[in-house]
Amino acid sequence: MYLNIFKIGGNILDDPKRLDTFLNTFCDCSEKKILVHGGGKLASELCRQLDIKVVMNQGRRITDLMTLRVAVMVYAGWINKNLVASLLSRGCRALGLSGADGGCIIADKRKPEPVDYGFAGDLKDGSVNTIFIRQLLDKGLVPVFSPITCDPAGQLLNTNADTIASALAVAFRRYYTVRLRFLFDREGVCCPGSDKPLPLLSRAQYEKLRDQGTISDGMIPKVENALRALEQGIDEVLIGNTCIQL
Amino acid sequence: MYLNIFKIGGNILDDPKRLDTFLNTFCDCSEKKILVHGGGKLASELCRQLDIKVVMNQGRRITDLMTLRVAVMVYAGWINKNLVASLLSRGCRALGLSGADGGCIIADKRKPEPVDYGFAGDLKDGSVNTIFIRQLLDKGLVPVFSPITCDPAGQLLNTNADTIASALAVAFRRYYTVRLRFLFDREGVCCPGSDKPLPLLSRAQYEKLRDQGTISDGMIPKVENALRALEQGIDEVLIGNTCIQL
Repeated sequence: MYLNIFKIGGNILDDPKRLDTFLNTFCDCSEKKILVHGGGKLASELCRQLDIKVVMNQGRRITDLMTLRVAVMVYAGWINKNLVASLLSRGCRALGLSGADGGCIIADKRKPEPVDYGFAGDLKDGSVNTIFIRQLLDKGLVPVFSPITCDPAGQLLNTNADTIASALAVAFRRYYTVRLRFLFDREGVCCPGSDKPLPLLSRAQYEKLRDQGTISDGMIPKVENALRALEQGIDEVLIGNTCIQL
Repeated sequence: MYLNIFKIGGNILDDPKRLDTFLNTFCDCSEKKILVHGGGKLASELCRQLDIKVVMNQGRRITDLMTLRVAVMVYAGWINKNLVASLLSRGCRALGLSGADGGCIIADKRKPEPVDYGFAGDLKDGSVNTIFIRQLLDKGLVPVFSPITCDPAGQLLNTNADTIASALAVAFRRYYTVRLRFLFDREGVCCPGSDKPLPLLSRAQYEKLRDQGTISDGMIPKVENALRALEQGIDEVLIGNTCIQL
C-alpha cells in the first residue's frame, strides 16, 4: 500500500493561487497521504513587527525563546489551522498535528555545539509514534504536520519541516511503499547555468554542488533529507514543483 | 461512564503556579476527560504590540481579520501546543484540537446584527462531531480544545471557549454522565457584597444579578453557558476554582 508524504514550504504557502492548485491536487490523491508544511513569509514578518531578529545558519533558523513563540504561533497556529480548514472544505478530513499532539513526534533539543540553534529539535530513530499515526491513517484521517515538536520534558521545539517529512518517510517504510515529495516553486535541483532540473542527483554530485555554492541555504537541508531518506530505503523521493510530481 | 469537561481561562493560564497545580490535578483524574481552554493576556498583549485595537462587547471579543489571526496564533498555536506538551510530559496523551481538525466542531459565522462580532463562530445542534471525538476518547487520548472553529467553507472563526465546553457537554450527554467544570480564580459566583460563593444559582437569580450589574463582562457567557447546559440535561455544572471542583 502506498503512503504519499508531501512537504510544502513558503514558496507554495505564500502564493494563494499555487496553494489552491496544490490543495486541489492533494485532495485528488486517493491513497493514504500526509502533509508536512514549513513556514513562509509570515513568521519573518511577525518577527520584524515584534522587533525579533531573524538569524539563519545554512538555511536553518536560530530559535531563541521569542522566535520559538512566533514559530509555534505561525506554524502550529495560523498556517496549520488554515490548511486544515481549507482541506476540510474540500472534503478532506485533515487533522492538524504538532509533534506534541498524541506524542506523535518526540524530539531532542539540539546540542549547542558547534552552533547554538536555540530551541531547535532533532529527530532520531524512534522519534515518530508510528502506531498512533497509523491509527489516524486507518480511520481515513489526513495528518497535517506543522514543523513544531517537543521533547520528553514538554519543551516545544522548532524543527525543520524537511527533516520531519523525511523522518516520517523513514519511519513508515516498513508499513507502506512510501513516496516522499518535497514540493517547491522550481522544477527540481538544476545544474549550474541551466534551468533544466537534474533527473537524478547522487550524494557525490550534491556535495560537489554544495561546496561550489550552487546548492545553498534552504536547499541544503532539503537535499540532505532527501538523500538520507533514500539511503534509508525510501522507494521514491522527488524534489520539484507540484505539476511534475502529482 | 463519566466524561469530565474542564474549561480554563486566562486566570489559570496566565499564572504558572496555578496552571501547574491544575495540570497535575487534571492528570490525576482517571476518568475520560476533555480540556477546553480560552485565551489569556498574551492575545491582548500581542494585539497591542501589533497595534490592533481590542474591542469587547459583553465579555465577547469583536474579531476582525487581524484579531482572528492573533486569536488563531495564540489560542490554537502557543497556548494549545504548550498545554499539550505539558500534559504529555506528565504522561497524559493529550491531543490539541481546533474545531477544524478532523471536522470536530463546525460553526457558523455569527450574523452581523445586532452587533457585528466579525469572525466569531456560533455553534448549533450537530456542530460537534461526537463520533470522531469518541474515537479519540476510546483510544485513551485526551482532547485539548482551543476556542477556534471553522465554518463549512473553511473560514476559521473565533469561538467563546465557555460555549465550546458547554456544546461538548450537551453533545456528549447521551453517551456519558457529563460533569462540566468552568474553572477560574474565584470560588464561584458570589452574592453582592460577599466573598462566599452561591451554592446554587437559578436562571431567575442570574438574570437579576446581571441586570443589577453584579454579574458582568466575561461572567455573562460563562453563566449563560452553564445554565443552558443544565437546561439541556447536563448532570452537573460547576463554576469555581480548581481546589473546590476536583
